[in-house]
Amino acid sequence: MKIELTPIGFVRTKAKSIPRHWTVSDVEGEIVINEEYKEGLRDIKAGQHIVVIFYFHQSPQFTHELLVQKPHHSKESKGVFSICSPVRPNPIGMSVVEVTGIDGCTLHIKGLDMLDGTPVIDIKPMVTMKEA
Amino acid sequence: MKIELTPIGFVRTKAKSIPRHWTVSDVEGEIVINEEYKEGLRDIKAGQHIVVIFYFHQSPQFTHELLVQKPHHSKESKGVFSICSPVRPNPIGMSVVEVTGIDGCTLHIKGLDMLDGTPVIDIKPMVTMKEA
Repeated sequence: MKIELTPIGFVRTKAKSIPRHWTVSDVEGEIVINEEYKEGLRDIKAGQHIVVIFYFHQSPQFTHELLVQKPHHSKESKGVFSICSPVRPNPIGMSVVEVTGIDGCTLHIKGLDMLDGTPVIDIKPMVTMKEA
Repeated sequence: MKIELTPIGFVRTKAKSIPRHWTVSDVEGEIVINEEYKEGLRDIKAGQHIVVIFYFHQSPQFTHELLVQKPHHSKESKGVFSICSPVRPNPIGMSVVEVTGIDGCTLHIKGLDMLDGTPVIDIKPMVTMKEA
């Protein structure tokens, strides 16, 4: 079974050094959504946090030796499903970023950990158990 | 640009009625991971929460009239990127579930909102800002 996706937009950032994780990032940038999806952005407001699902487009090919990896910031190796490494069976990332402004199809964001040019697959509202 | 993914496993549940969202679910089931990825599950422990990225395999085809939708439980229509609808430009879901046990390649889970047979794309650790 194959699943085929098409990006809805791309990340833009001038930052050359990208933090290892969104939880420790204050890097700013933009998500530029394709014009055809503009109406779907309607209820996103500055100040809110969003979940961004994206494609690790520069990750090397996954091989089975990488089922266990040692993250750069860690002393111990861990199973790939317990770490946030971009090198994974399906190179899909998930980050939570803050929306600082909206300008047409451009979301200005803060707290990103994606490279410039990263294909964005989906944007979701940030939902926590407390809001259920 | 096309992104092609292959499921790492599938959701199994006997539940016939699936809650609208994981935040309001106590449904139990399993994620059965393909044998080839077993080593990647190594550090997942019973009692922890995991992020599951999956494919909405039974969603109808997305059309542009669906860029704004009214969720069943809501009185107002919203842009698709502000709601958790399974009908979205890329039909990718994200849920947080509790691991209640591990048995080889099978993760016993609780709190699921996926249908039986849902293809699983990735499993990630649950990370919050506090853990940064």
